[in-house]
Amino acid sequence: MNTILLNVNSTEPMYQQIYRYIIQQISDGVLKAGDKMPSTRTLSQNMSISRNTVSAAYDQLVSEGFLEAVEKSGYYVCQISELYHPHTLKTERETTSGILDKAAILDFTPFTVDISHFPYATWRKLYNNCISDMNEEVLQPGNIQGDYRLRESISNYLLDSRGVHCTPEQVIVGAGNDYLIQLLCQLFKEKRHFAMEDPVYIRAYQIIQGFGHMVAPIPVESDGINLSILEHSNCDIAYVTPSHQYPLGVIMPITNRLRLLAWANKKPNRYIIEDDHDSEFRYKGRPIPALQGEDSNGKVIYMGTFSRAIAPGMRVGYMVLPTDLLDMYHKNLSYYSSTVSRVEQAVLANFMTNGYFERHLNKMRKVYKQKHDLVLRCCRIFGDQIEISGENAGLHLVVTFKEFKNEPFFFNFMETQGIRLYDLSPHYIENTMKLDRINALLGFAGIDMDSIESSIHQLNLAIQKYKQQYVNSLDNS
Amino acid sequence: MNTILLNVNSTEPMYQQIYRYIIQQISDGVLKAGDKMPSTRTLSQNMSISRNTVSAAYDQLVSEGFLEAVEKSGYYVCQISELYHPHTLKTERETTSGILDKAAILDFTPFTVDISHFPYATWRKLYNNCISDMNEEVLQPGNIQGDYRLRESISNYLLDSRGVHCTPEQVIVGAGNDYLIQLLCQLFKEKRHFAMEDPVYIRAYQIIQGFGHMVAPIPVESDGINLSILEHSNCDIAYVTPSHQYPLGVIMPITNRLRLLAWANKKPNRYIIEDDHDSEFRYKGRPIPALQGEDSNGKVIYMGTFSRAIAPGMRVGYMVLPTDLLDMYHKNLSYYSSTVSRVEQAVLANFMTNGYFERHLNKMRKVYKQKHDLVLRCCRIFGDQIEISGENAGLHLVVTFKEFKNEPFFFNFMETQGIRLYDLSPHYIENTMKLDRINALLGFAGIDMDSIESSIHQLNLAIQKYKQQYVNSLDNS
Repeated sequence: MNTILLNVNSTEPMYQQIYRYIIQQISDGVLKAGDKMPSTRTLSQNMSISRNTVSAAYDQLVSEGFLEAVEKSGYYVCQISELYHPHTLKTERETTSGILDKAAILDFTPFTVDISHFPYATWRKLYNNCISDMNEEVLQPGNIQGDYRLRESISNYLLDSRGVHCTPEQVIVGAGNDYLIQLLCQLFKEKRHFAMEDPVYIRAYQIIQGFGHMVAPIPVESDGINLSILEHSNCDIAYVTPSHQYPLGVIMPITNRLRLLAWANKKPNRYIIEDDHDSEFRYKGRPIPALQGEDSNGKVIYMGTFSRAIAPGMRVGYMVLPTDLLDMYHKNLSYYSSTVSRVEQAVLANFMTNGYFERHLNKMRKVYKQKHDLVLRCCRIFGDQIEISGENAGLHLVVTFKEFKNEPFFFNFMETQGIRLYDLSPHYIENTMKLDRINALLGFAGIDMDSIESSIHQLNLAIQKYKQQYVNSLDNS
Repeated sequence: MNTILLNVNSTEPMYQQIYRYIIQQISDGVLKAGDKMPSTRTLSQNMSISRNTVSAAYDQLVSEGFLEAVEKSGYYVCQISELYHPHTLKTERETTSGILDKAAILDFTPFTVDISHFPYATWRKLYNNCISDMNEEVLQPGNIQGDYRLRESISNYLLDSRGVHCTPEQVIVGAGNDYLIQLLCQLFKEKRHFAMEDPVYIRAYQIIQGFGHMVAPIPVESDGINLSILEHSNCDIAYVTPSHQYPLGVIMPITNRLRLLAWANKKPNRYIIEDDHDSEFRYKGRPIPALQGEDSNGKVIYMGTFSRAIAPGMRVGYMVLPTDLLDMYHKNLSYYSSTVSRVEQAVLANFMTNGYFERHLNKMRKVYKQKHDLVLRCCRIFGDQIEISGENAGLHLVVTFKEFKNEPFFFNFMETQGIRLYDLSPHYIENTMKLDRINALLGFAGIDMDSIESSIHQLNLAIQKYKQQYVNSLDNS
C-alpha cells in the first residue's frame, strides 16, 4: 500500500477517508496482522498531502486498536477478531482499545479495573434518590470547587485512609486528574521548571509540557525519584508518586520523603505534586501513608482519583491545594465552573458518607489481592526467564523478560498470538535505551479470576514460540 | 470593622478565619444589609497580612452571596434571609448564589433555567437502563472526544434544528463550554489575537485572556459585532454569538454573517468561534440558523451546551471543529481524556435518540414563551420609565432604567429591598462608562409563572422607592 485514492470532491475529511480505507483493507484481509504500514512521511509524500492528515488517520486507528505504533519502528497492523466486520464499525469503534477485540485478544491492560463487582443496585438507588423534584438543586449550577458535601466526604476519607490533612475548602473536585493537572498548569502562571519521574504517567508529562512549562525527567531508582539529581536541578516543582510509583511500583521510603520535603522547604516557590493514583490497593503490610501528611509547610499538592477505586468511566478526581495556592486559585482561576455533573457529585457523596465506598474498597482489595497472588503463583512457570517487580500493590506488575533484547516487535508478535501486552518503553520521557531487556506492564485487574491460570499459560506458550523465532532470527543474522 | 483578630496558631487558613468572622458578623446582625465593607487594601494593611488573603475571603463571600462586589465602589453586605443561621452554614454555603436566600430574595438571575419541568422519571429510567451489568462498558474509559453515539445524536440534532453541517467525528463533547474553550485556547498554540463582542460572556473572555491570548473588545451594535472595527483590527479569531448576542440579545443579520465569513476567508489562519448558547429558545418567527451552516471553508468553530436546554448542573457542552483544526486536535491534544461521565453520555444519547430531548425542548419553549410574554405585559406598569431590549429569545431581557444614572449602588439598594437584579456593566470588557443609564439583566426562567406578576409589582415598588431616595440624594447634593 504505497498510496490511497482519495475522493477530493467528497465532503468527508481526507484523514477520515484514509482511516476508512485502511479499516476496509484490514477487514478485507488485504492488510494482515503484523504487517508494517508505510510511514506517515512516505504515504503523505506519495499522496502529496499533509503529513498531519496521514498522522491523524493513523492516530485514530491506533487509538481504536487497528494499528499499533511501535516506537522508533513504525506502525503495525493489530490482530483483529474474526468476529470483526466493518458494518459493525460504529458501535465497535466506540469500544475502547482492548475491548474492541476482547473476544479474540487476551488483554493484560493496566488501564482497566474489575467492574464485575461494581455495586450497580446501590448506585442506581442512590442516583434515583438524588435526582428528584425534591432535590432540584442538583440541576442548578454548583460550587466551582465541587459540592461541599462531596469535598467534606473526600477530606474525611483522605484523613482516615491516607493520613492527608486538609479542610473541605482545600479540596477541588474535577473531571479527572488530567483536567486538574490543566488547572495546576494555569495556576503556575509564569513558566516553571517541573521535575518528573522517568518513567512517568506520560499523559501528565504531555499536558504539563503542552502548557509550555519546562520538564526535567529524573530517573526512578529502587527508592523512587533520584533526589540527588533533583537537588542539583533547577526545578521548583516535583511531580511524584511516592506511595506507589507509576509505572514501576517502587515505594519512596520515609527518609527520602523527608529529604524531598526538605528540598521543597528550601525555597518559597517550590512545591511537590503528589499523585496518589492507586494507593487504595496495597496487598502486603500497612498502607503507605501519603507524603502530604508529613508536610507542615503547605508544600504538597495532593491528587487522587476515583478511576481506580470505583471506575474510569466516572471521570471524577480531586486535588488538595496548600492554602497559599488556594488563595491564588480563588484569585486567578475562580472563573472556571465545576466540571463534574452535580447529580454524580451528590451520588458519590452519599456513596462515601453511607459507608458504601469503604465497603467497596475492602471488597476490591480482596479481589485484587487474590488476582495479584494468583498471577504471581502462575508466573512461576517462567522460572528465571522473567523478573517481576512492582508487586504487592496497584493493578499491574512489571515483568522483565531477561532472555530477550528490547525488541519492539515483541509486542506485535504477541498481538499475532492473541495476547496484548503493554510495553514499558513509552512511559519513558527519555533514555528508554537503558532498557536493554523487554519490560511489560502486566495488568491483572481486567482478567477474570478463573481465567488467570489459562491466561498465563497462553502467555507462556507465546513466549516460548517467540523464543524459538527470536533464536532462529539470531542464528540467521 | 477595621481589623479582624486572627488565631495565628490555628491550622485554619487565614482567609477562612476572615471568611467565618464576617459571616458571624452578618448573622449576628453586626454587619447589616447594604453596609460597605472596608476595602481589601485597608483591611489587609490594618491586619498587616497579604491583600490576596483578604480578597480570597471576600471573593468566597461574594460567590456565596454574603457580599456583593460593586465595580469601582467596593464590597457591600447582601440582604440575607432571616431564616439564615450560621450553624446551617455547611449546607447553605453549598447552595449557589441566588438559591442561598431564595426564601427572602426575589432573584431575577439570568443564569438559571426552569427545572420544575425536568423529566425526572424519564431520566431515571434511562439512567437505570444505562448503568447495569449488561452495559459494563459505561464504567470503562471512553473515546476522548466523547462516545460516538452521543456525538452522532448531537450532529443529527444540530443539522435538523440549527442547520449545522458536521460529521460525528468533528464533534467534541466536554464538561461544559468553559472546558471546551480551554481546549481551543490550547489548540491555538502560539498566542493569537481574539476579537470578542463587548459586552460578552465574561468567563470566555477571562479564560482566553488567562491563556495569554490577546483579546480586542469590539463594540456590539444593533446588528451584532461591529464588523468595520473587526476588519480594521489585527485579530484573526472572532468569538461571536450571532443567533442571539449574549448578553444584549441582538441578532446578526445574514448580510453581516456573510461579511463576517468573508473576513474569515481572507486569511488562512482566521477562524470564527460561534457560541450558540441559547438559540434553542426563540419565541417569534423562525429560529435563526447557525452561522456555521453558511460556512463552506471550514472557518467556523461551533459551540453549544445542554446547560440551558436541559440543566446547568449537567455540565455537558460540545463543539464542532473544522477538519483542519480537528487534525490539529488529534495531533496535539489527543492525550486529553474525555471529561464527561460515560453513563451520563449514554443517558443523554438515549434521551436524544428516543425523541425525549425534542419533546422537552418544545415544552420548555412553550413555558419560556409564556413567561417571556407575561413579563413583557407586566412591565407595562413602568410605562416609559424603562426600555426593554433583547426580547423574543433566550432566558432574560435587558432592562434600561432611563431615569437613573448608572449608579452601582442601585443594585445594592435593590438587594436591601429583597430583589436581586443583575447589572449589565460587569459583562463589558471595557468602556462600561458609555452606559450612562442603569441596565439590568432580567432573567425570567427561574421565576414561577404564577408569581411573575407579583414579582414585577414588587420590582416596581422598589424602583419607586429608589426613585424617591435617588431624587432626594440629588436634592441633598
